[in-house]
Amino acid sequence: VSVNFDHLRRERIGLPESVYCGGKDVDVIERLAAEFLEKPQMPVLFTRLSREKFDALSLGVKEKMDYHAASQTAFVNGAHPQKKETSVAVVAAGTSDLTVAYEASRTLDHLGIANHIYSDVGVAGIWRVEQRMTEITKADAVIVVAGMEGALASVLGGLIRQPIIAVPTSVGYGVAEGGVAALHSMLASCSPGVLVTNIDNGYGAACAASRIVSLK
Amino acid sequence: VSVNFDHLRRERIGLPESVYCGGKDVDVIERLAAEFLEKPQMPVLFTRLSREKFDALSLGVKEKMDYHAASQTAFVNGAHPQKKETSVAVVAAGTSDLTVAYEASRTLDHLGIANHIYSDVGVAGIWRVEQRMTEITKADAVIVVAGMEGALASVLGGLIRQPIIAVPTSVGYGVAEGGVAALHSMLASCSPGVLVTNIDNGYGAACAASRIVSLK
Amino acid sequence: VSVNFDHLRRERIGLPESVYCGGKDVDVIERLAAEFLEKPQMPVLFTRLSREKFDALSLGVKEKMDYHAASQTAFVNGAHPQKKETSVAVVAAGTSDLTVAYEASRTLDHLGIANHIYSDVGVAGIWRVEQRMTEITKADAVIVVAGMEGALASVLGGLIRQPIIAVPTSVGYGVAEGGVAALHSMLASCSPGVLVTNIDNGYGAACAASRIVSLK
Amino acid sequence: VSVNFDHLRRERIGLPESVYCGGKDVDVIERLAAEFLEKPQMPVLFTRLSREKFDALSLGVKEKMDYHAASQTAFVNGAHPQKKETSVAVVAAGTSDLTVAYEASRTLDHLGIANHIYSDVGVAGIWRVEQRMTEITKADAVIVVAGMEGALASVLGGLIRQPIIAVPTSVGYGVAEGGVAALHSMLASCSPGVLVTNIDNGYGAACAASRIVSLK
Amino acid sequence: VSVNFDHLRRERIGLPESVYCGGKDVDVIERLAAEFLEKPQMPVLFTRLSREKFDALSLGVKEKMDYHAASQTAFVNGAHPQKKETSVAVVAAGTSDLTVAYEASRTLDHLGIANHIYSDVGVAGIWRVEQRMTEITKADAVIVVAGMEGALASVLGGLIRQPIIAVPTSVGYGVAEGGVAALHSMLASCSPGVLVTNIDNGYGAACAASRIVSLK
Amino acid sequence: VSVNFDHLRRERIGLPESVYCGGKDVDVIERLAAEFLEKPQMPVLFTRLSREKFDALSLGVKEKMDYHAASQTAFVNGAHPQKKETSVAVVAAGTSDLTVAYEASRTLDHLGIANHIYSDVGVAGIWRVEQRMTEITKADAVIVVAGMEGALASVLGGLIRQPIIAVPTSVGYGVAEGGVAALHSMLASCSPGVLVTNIDNGYGAACAASRIVSLK
Amino acid sequence: VSVNFDHLRRERIGLPESVYCGGKDVDVIERLAAEFLEKPQMPVLFTRLSREKFDALSLGVKEKMDYHAASQTAFVNGAHPQKKETSVAVVAAGTSDLTVAYEASRTLDHLGIANHIYSDVGVAGIWRVEQRMTEITKADAVIVVAGMEGALASVLGGLIRQPIIAVPTSVGYGVAEGGVAALHSMLASCSPGVLVTNIDNGYGAACAASRIVSLK
Amino acid sequence: VSVNFDHLRRERIGLPESVYCGGKDVDVIERLAAEFLEKPQMPVLFTRLSREKFDALSLGVKEKMDYHAASQTAFVNGAHPQKKETSVAVVAAGTSDLTVAYEASRTLDHLGIANHIYSDVGVAGIWRVEQRMTEITKADAVIVVAGMEGALASVLGGLIRQPIIAVPTSVGYGVAEGGVAALHSMLASCSPGVLVTNIDNGYGAACAASRIVSLK
Repeated sequence: VSVNFDHLRRERIGLPESVYCGGKDVDVIERLAAEFLEKPQMPVLFTRLSREKFDALSLGVKEKMDYHAASQTAFVNGAHPQKKETSVAVVAAGTSDLTVAYEASRTLDHLGIANHIYSDVGVAGIWRVEQRMTEITKADAVIVVAGMEGALASVLGGLIRQPIIAVPTSVGYGVAEGGVAALHSMLASCSPGVLVTNIDNGYGAACAASRIVSLK
Repeated sequence: VSVNFDHLRRERIGLPESVYCGGKDVDVIERLAAEFLEKPQMPVLFTRLSREKFDALSLGVKEKMDYHAASQTAFVNGAHPQKKETSVAVVAAGTSDLTVAYEASRTLDHLGIANHIYSDVGVAGIWRVEQRMTEITKADAVIVVAGMEGALASVLGGLIRQPIIAVPTSVGYGVAEGGVAALHSMLASCSPGVLVTNIDNGYGAACAASRIVSLK
Repeated sequence: VSVNFDHLRRERIGLPESVYCGGKDVDVIERLAAEFLEKPQMPVLFTRLSREKFDALSLGVKEKMDYHAASQTAFVNGAHPQKKETSVAVVAAGTSDLTVAYEASRTLDHLGIANHIYSDVGVAGIWRVEQRMTEITKADAVIVVAGMEGALASVLGGLIRQPIIAVPTSVGYGVAEGGVAALHSMLASCSPGVLVTNIDNGYGAACAASRIVSLK
Repeated sequence: VSVNFDHLRRERIGLPESVYCGGKDVDVIERLAAEFLEKPQMPVLFTRLSREKFDALSLGVKEKMDYHAASQTAFVNGAHPQKKETSVAVVAAGTSDLTVAYEASRTLDHLGIANHIYSDVGVAGIWRVEQRMTEITKADAVIVVAGMEGALASVLGGLIRQPIIAVPTSVGYGVAEGGVAALHSMLASCSPGVLVTNIDNGYGAACAASRIVSLK
Repeated sequence: VSVNFDHLRRERIGLPESVYCGGKDVDVIERLAAEFLEKPQMPVLFTRLSREKFDALSLGVKEKMDYHAASQTAFVNGAHPQKKETSVAVVAAGTSDLTVAYEASRTLDHLGIANHIYSDVGVAGIWRVEQRMTEITKADAVIVVAGMEGALASVLGGLIRQPIIAVPTSVGYGVAEGGVAALHSMLASCSPGVLVTNIDNGYGAACAASRIVSLK
Repeated sequence: VSVNFDHLRRERIGLPESVYCGGKDVDVIERLAAEFLEKPQMPVLFTRLSREKFDALSLGVKEKMDYHAASQTAFVNGAHPQKKETSVAVVAAGTSDLTVAYEASRTLDHLGIANHIYSDVGVAGIWRVEQRMTEITKADAVIVVAGMEGALASVLGGLIRQPIIAVPTSVGYGVAEGGVAALHSMLASCSPGVLVTNIDNGYGAACAASRIVSLK
Repeated sequence: VSVNFDHLRRERIGLPESVYCGGKDVDVIERLAAEFLEKPQMPVLFTRLSREKFDALSLGVKEKMDYHAASQTAFVNGAHPQKKETSVAVVAAGTSDLTVAYEASRTLDHLGIANHIYSDVGVAGIWRVEQRMTEITKADAVIVVAGMEGALASVLGGLIRQPIIAVPTSVGYGVAEGGVAALHSMLASCSPGVLVTNIDNGYGAACAASRIVSLK
Repeated sequence: VSVNFDHLRRERIGLPESVYCGGKDVDVIERLAAEFLEKPQMPVLFTRLSREKFDALSLGVKEKMDYHAASQTAFVNGAHPQKKETSVAVVAAGTSDLTVAYEASRTLDHLGIANHIYSDVGVAGIWRVEQRMTEITKADAVIVVAGMEGALASVLGGLIRQPIIAVPTSVGYGVAEGGVAALHSMLASCSPGVLVTNIDNGYGAACAASRIVSLK
């Protein structure tokens, strides 16, 4: 069974094909990376590429990848050209949410969109949200990354006027395990106009931000 | 089958028997009310007594009840004597949460505990929380009533030092319908030391507040 | 207990306060409408105002409301001024999804944003999607409204480059009852950058679209 | 406790006994394989036989098995004779769904039914579905294998007239983890006459296809 | 907003458009029926048309409908021509499952496929299954309709060689309420090759049977 | 923190204390075993004692335990004296259900109650149930152990007159994973008087059987 | 479609056919009652026959039924002969659980088994349990009926040696709504040998008790 | 991305910042510990620090930590000064619940609040609860830690008058796995005024107890 990529995706929807490594074996990832490396004009993003899987790839492939362990992402054939005059703020509630925030940030890097991560902005100490408000309100769109009860999305939603993309994370235990508590909290937000992605989907949040800032 | 009340409950745990009318037919409620009215020294609280059920009771019983429609509660044989020097703040996120807030407030009234309801204090406009902070921090314990994503519990939990009793409400639709989103949000709160009751359980929150303020 | 509105919301986040009538009694809605009617310079949107509740309001209030039964919305004090040069496409999979599509459309009307509803565009006959593609791709943002399995969001997500706001509806029975199947389908979409609201939340989708098209 | 096989199953329902190795220890699998090898006229299929378990079997057993790692299946005593003039199309949405597609394909091989796998036919690039339509519509029955939101079943259901067997896979994360999102999506499909199996049940889909193509 | 029917569905997939009345108001149903009545050459099936909704239609429309209350279905412009030499058995576990069985049967009638209902064939008295085996095994495909624990699908799946379409019903209470227990039971059946529809989806089962018997 | 056993449990309810090793560390199990070994007149059953945990115990403790790997149980200080003239049938649907069946059987052995395991009696080949009917109907009580869709409980419930204790197992995948499908199927059984235990609870089923056969 | 009763059920399993009226229309119930009334030697129990449905039956049928409103049961053709020297205790936690307790009691009456209901024996006032212990321990089997958190089953399970049949009820709100909290609590009981029925299944509990006391 | 601690939390709400190590990598924990060790006047609690993670820290950090393996907690810079004249009882139902009880106890130690653990107080042998009643009723607040069905909270709630904080644990299997059965049982308790934390949240229970006993 050979691979049948959606090569025209970027022309069609403005977002390139990417490779989700989550459920794939190392040999499949190796084969896909090798195929893409033969088309050096086509930058491709690999996501959910764990340290263990990356280490198991062949040296020839690894050397040509720009790998970033904290976000589990790799650039093959580099990134897309930098877009001008747009920027995205990635706001993470806690230290444990950073993996997902990094995935969003690296995807934005790959798409050529300027971005900045604001970390440790949890609502348990709401002064930390207020402290960063001036900076955050300068961005064209805001990605909010939070686990547990995900209340940060509601608080920010009541403070800023930009598009808000809320990413629930699987950080937490008990009723918060797996991220459904944060997901439901964000979907049920009392602040108007908060949009939500799947749990831990930093990649999707960045793609959505790209669709949005392209309007400008 | 005759009734077997826990008459010594108040002596044992400091909280009197009460009658949950939720799943009971009007004739059962009528019979129980009649039985209690024969012991005028024993104040009893009826909860979840809907307007329809109350209206269907006999005139003799209705006249002797102190009924409060907004909280669906009735006092039979009056209330317990006022306790001194303790007070509880009942903070409700939205107008729709008031039914539950009233149930908490009326139960506190019945137990003889001073209390005040603060309404429309949702996090979508967080200045409303801050506006009420001085008053709220004067209470001995705080009951937080919120539906939808229930973020108010987390925000208050990071701002005040008193005991916090969070009551999720069934207010909301979609993933918030029935109150589980608010319940999980409150249980998973990133603010330390937030305690939670069952959904819509204003009565239980007031009982817990009574246990707490009795320490003073 | 008096009402404490978030009157400065529009100045703060670009979206006005609105009144969700879902869990509110007619007398509360009457009181709120009366209060707002005294501030004629402040247009307010009432949502989830069922035909039955609307009919039960006083004549004085009803006459001053611009009520739209199919969307269960009412304008009090009119709408906000028309914004220029932006437009939103509201795409509904089936006839049963129209209630939610109308809620989105009327909220956009109230916010002064041009919009058009495209109906009966379900994926069971995918030629209907393709037939409308030229028109849909002219909008600045696209709201996709679908119940049952909600596949329309994925199909559109692979065909257009605009921001996509997917609204799952509670249309369906069995595993689709209540809308969770559509919600999960949209969150798990294989098309990149699809954003999602709570089930049946046409209002929230319109608010998010407003945040987005304001970028332009 | 000795084994009590349903040896007459094939005569009764047209489908032979098979061995699901999922919850079984290696020594149990070894013992069952040895028993069947003593009846060489009876071809038996082992499913969910992981690489690790297969490797742990005795050399004598392993040598006599026709093992296929990608589908985790093994033929003991070969396969059933080839049936004539029927064929089944196995359509897989993504590369990660191939494990389940292979299980269906190998089971069909074992039952003697011609089949072909069509891969990377996801709805995010719907031209790939259309590209394969001529081939797919030549089959007598179509097995659709998809994870995440499983929208492929609805799209195909609106395009072809053959029997459709939809197999949701556990491919995905967040709300799609475990495959329930795809399962519900397929059950709630707006395309008429889509039938569904348990999650990841490629084996069952092939058995159902066998029941169906036997009609011809 | 005007209606946009999928008029070519029958040519494309062999199954005509139909109208699910479940979530639709009477005036919408009236309008759709009137539209179809103007195309007398096009037979259309209306499903989930409750007695109350049917009674509320205009006399002119009602008179031209062939309404069947027990199945909540109506034929508009009659039925499709009878297909020859195929037949379907509809097997219902209990009396309460008959509504769904009738929906399947009437849909088959509308599609021109011969069918027979076998009722009260529950597994609590398994002799009733065995008693009907000769008749059931003469059909080309078998639709099994059962609520509660849905065990009938597994028992039949081990006794017959035809294609089996299992329809879980919402008959039952406690853990069986809504039909999820029967649905899961059927999906997890230990009998190979049992296919499943959404809960109460007699219509979909009939459409699937039509796809299947067309092979013959 | 010292241990506080319920030493009088056997005198009180006829069932001795036992040690559930599921969530306990090896050192805790070691300490408990050592304590009990000092009271040789008191037979104690250890359940869910995995091979790994047993192997990690000290030699002194291991030597004095009667360990049975397939059921993950150990007798400390032997078993209780044999009761006369009662017997229990343990009927297991599939080979994978044997772990739980063995736990029930060994617990019965420990309690001094005669019992026999009947294996591979799944409903997919219902003749295997009928084949064993004569033997099974001689027992005083019947424990039915089944995973997946658990239909065996319903079939047996319609065939025998003895007390039936149904034990759902976690055997299965997809919707059957974890055993909830079997649990719900057994609770919703259409056969009257089927009683159910927690998933995989062979120990509890045996204790219940002991309570029942003591009546004789 | 004619009715096909399991007339030999009593001979086969010791329990007669009965009619669950839950999902049935009045005309179906009428027809079934009429059929049974023609076989006066065959006593039949009708369950879940609500006051409304009973009232809607024809006078001829109603007069010949022994109807009991509190349990929603009716005897047609009387009850079975009284069995000697066995008795069952039905213990109900609260007043709201009485409907289910009555269903169990009436079913036992119909089966000819002596029984007694003990009411208001909730664990919030555990002295009420202790007060009734002498009486309860005289029964051959104990049916425990409780909603909310269902803790009574665990408490009784640690105090008595008889067979215990726990019936969770749908009494409660919030997380207890529908009875799943009580069901799970009873299944997970730390007291050994507690057996469980479906939620609100007083009928099934009585049938199980009949199977058990027949051992004596 | 640098760390942004909520250093003023203790001044604001009376509870210091702490470090939840659950989702954090060893190098992050190392870095946080090093940062805090540079502020020796600021005692910090690390929770969910597993033996494996602790062992992997650098020697320099490990030596300065007061680590307690059974509770998976570590004190960095010691504990807070002892508060006078308040005490908390931590009551654990079973041996397996001790991990969570220890977490509560160590957090109380860190906050300077006297406390005592009462273990093996399960309701299956209710005399063990009664045996400890005199001691338990001397505490100012009671933390109840229980898994499985969590009935201990209801029993204690009916026996004592102090504030009760119920902590469900993830101890159990089948329907009790993960702790939701215990959580729901505690939330639905029939005893008035029982408050609940997230599953396994011994830390949060201690923080809540601190808020409560500060009232005294």
